[in-house]
Amino acid sequence: MNADNGKRLMLTVAYDGSDFSGWQVQPDKRTIQGSLEDALSRLYVNQIVRIHASGRTDAGVHALAQTATFDPPDRPNIPLDNLKRALNHILPTTILVREIKKVPSSFHARFSAVGKIYTYNINRGENLPLIARWAWHKPDAPAATAICDSAAPLIGTHDFKSFATRGKDVDNTTRTIYGINVKEEGNLLKISFHGSGFLYRMVRSIVGVLVPVSGNHIGPAEVRRILDAKDRSVAPECAPPNGLSLTKVIYD
Amino acid sequence: MNADNGKRLMLTVAYDGSDFSGWQVQPDKRTIQGSLEDALSRLYVNQIVRIHASGRTDAGVHALAQTATFDPPDRPNIPLDNLKRALNHILPTTILVREIKKVPSSFHARFSAVGKIYTYNINRGENLPLIARWAWHKPDAPAATAICDSAAPLIGTHDFKSFATRGKDVDNTTRTIYGINVKEEGNLLKISFHGSGFLYRMVRSIVGVLVPVSGNHIGPAEVRRILDAKDRSVAPECAPPNGLSLTKVIYD
Repeated sequence: MNADNGKRLMLTVAYDGSDFSGWQVQPDKRTIQGSLEDALSRLYVNQIVRIHASGRTDAGVHALAQTATFDPPDRPNIPLDNLKRALNHILPTTILVREIKKVPSSFHARFSAVGKIYTYNINRGENLPLIARWAWHKPDAPAATAICDSAAPLIGTHDFKSFATRGKDVDNTTRTIYGINVKEEGNLLKISFHGSGFLYRMVRSIVGVLVPVSGNHIGPAEVRRILDAKDRSVAPECAPPNGLSLTKVIYD
Repeated sequence: MNADNGKRLMLTVAYDGSDFSGWQVQPDKRTIQGSLEDALSRLYVNQIVRIHASGRTDAGVHALAQTATFDPPDRPNIPLDNLKRALNHILPTTILVREIKKVPSSFHARFSAVGKIYTYNINRGENLPLIARWAWHKPDAPAATAICDSAAPLIGTHDFKSFATRGKDVDNTTRTIYGINVKEEGNLLKISFHGSGFLYRMVRSIVGVLVPVSGNHIGPAEVRRILDAKDRSVAPECAPPNGLSLTKVIYD
């Protein structure tokens, strides 16, 4: 018997994080998880629906393709196309359900993921309001080539403890970064991080090292020194959340 | 004596209209004019400062370069660079003062203008949240070339009464459109209108004719018929405000 009789569904969701207190449900706060669960609960006639994401995103962080699974109540039986249309009708335009598909009941948005891609946008030009939502305004950011050079020591499997925010307990701070790509488009810099997974605030911590919030540009030797220190207090401030976007969650 | 002893200043301002109830001050509403006047009033130690724009923009409409003049109080005497920096520090990131410059005391942001450029953005792809703010989601919009062809009869000097919103009294509904340009960038269509000036909701009315909110594409003969009717009830619905942006106000 190979048939999977489960009913688990996976959502792929885009959102503009600037209007939300992050992904995770919090009392009396507007969150993306909360908005999605409320919308699902309405469609399933007030039954409680819990969704499980590939990971949280912080307040102000965007997503182009966050993933989340849930097990729909048995009734009503809503065809997937209708479910997607109805959700997007209920949700504000700051959240878009891009896809809903059936997945095996053993599938988990977080634990089944084999990689993630995050993109961090930096604007070196004028801080125009429609750009300010999704890019960090940093007129003195280094050139793409300089950022690329400094980022090189981070590629590969390392203990990224220096880039893990204190106060969050994780047993294992080793992660693999498969690649860091820096694209320059006019005044914009787009830094993409492809990794096995990322620690809490790790991408923003890395950007805060490659593009120091205050102070001067740091070369590859200094980046290696911070990495090797395995000590969060060595790394500079995190870059702000509005420049960050979860671009893709990768599954086998 | 050629010296102008006035002190009139012109602001060039960009804004994300999605968070505001339009340009014009209204009681108990968050407006762009209101936010700017409040910020100026704070800097001039609670003196009332009134600003005069090139024209209003509706709720949800954006600007890349709206212009507005004001006569600053005599004291404190704030150097222009400091004034710009202080305003941008006080204002939310949804409003950016791009430039402040001295203009002759006879200069008026509205009456001295010799032309305006508006851009209307249409998204034929997915309604991604960060695009939804500044583009009308219209997957069935006609191709750029078809829009261009239909727009041709509008170019030149005409009575645009069919494109003036009813209920707003204006003596003269004749305006000149110097050019209409349609650019296609991936799934995006960007329609630019360069004219001597525009009636209330005229650009959105024209877009609603070129890209019908409901119903089929209209060819140039039908557009000419609507123009010649000089009757607002002949034209279809206005396109939504979020796609519209005031791109430039032109002065001699």
